[in-house]
Amino acid sequence: MLENPIREGEVALSFDPAETADDARLVFIGRAFTPWRPERDCPRNMRQVRERLAEAPELAFQLQIDAPFRPGLKDIAPGKAIFVLMWMSSARRDLIIQAPKHRETPAGLFSLRSPVRPNPIGLSLVRVKDIDHGAGRIAVDALDCFDGTPIIDLKPYIETVDRLAEEA
Amino acid sequence: MLENPIREGEVALSFDPAETADDARLVFIGRAFTPWRPERDCPRNMRQVRERLAEAPELAFQLQIDAPFRPGLKDIAPGKAIFVLMWMSSARRDLIIQAPKHRETPAGLFSLRSPVRPNPIGLSLVRVKDIDHGAGRIAVDALDCFDGTPIIDLKPYIETVDRLAEEA
Repeated sequence: MLENPIREGEVALSFDPAETADDARLVFIGRAFTPWRPERDCPRNMRQVRERLAEAPELAFQLQIDAPFRPGLKDIAPGKAIFVLMWMSSARRDLIIQAPKHRETPAGLFSLRSPVRPNPIGLSLVRVKDIDHGAGRIAVDALDCFDGTPIIDLKPYIETVDRLAEEA
Repeated sequence: MLENPIREGEVALSFDPAETADDARLVFIGRAFTPWRPERDCPRNMRQVRERLAEAPELAFQLQIDAPFRPGLKDIAPGKAIFVLMWMSSARRDLIIQAPKHRETPAGLFSLRSPVRPNPIGLSLVRVKDIDHGAGRIAVDALDCFDGTPIIDLKPYIETVDRLAEEA
């Protein structure tokens, strides 16, 4: 994937985490199904997805969880909010300073939500619309990843835990 | 790690992701430094950490980012809110139904924030108190992981992206 062009001001690591990373290993627990294809105009984040939904409320988003992991869906119910962690597998991993089109100056990657990062994990907070526990199928209100993206974790959003303390 | 006892009502996968997982590989980008040791009374989540801080405001929390990744910290500044993704590396990974002490009935793991999960990724939303870009050292307001926990990603919290849409 290193043939992707580097834009002016961008800086790459001296190694490619996609080739060298082996500190820990992930198992994919399922896949996301979304209307977004790489070759089409894909929303950049959840805010843009929700803007599209205002125009096209028929857009549908699903998580399909693999059979061994489905018992773990117990207690997930419509209306609940969950964090979805995805593996943005088509992204390169070595750009440490990036120059996104929407920014005037290059930025440190840890200040960006770009899928290009040492560990290309995506994070989206969604609401469960419907769930079929036996089939491992969860309909959610929105997702900002490509169709077929691997899912690596689901976590309940807990208001008392996931809200920032007030600034001192 | 499978010698950990299974509580009544708990269900394990028929395989251990710690041994079989190889769908994707992670690189550790640094470590967390916290007051929490496994053998001591460790807070279970960020709410409990903040309760402890009210009693002991001298408790300190740091992220130490490894040298190759430090240029990616550009644009992180005191006051900013970031998601910290950690690898809860001491946890077993195969318990799909769990019986936490604080719950009356066993729960599906995807409804828990337990570090015991197929991919033991921890997620905490924190505020940056201070940063030394050259040394890769970030002081943050709170962390709920053990001292020495590997860091796998930092993401900016973006209010328009990370807030749930209102429920329909």
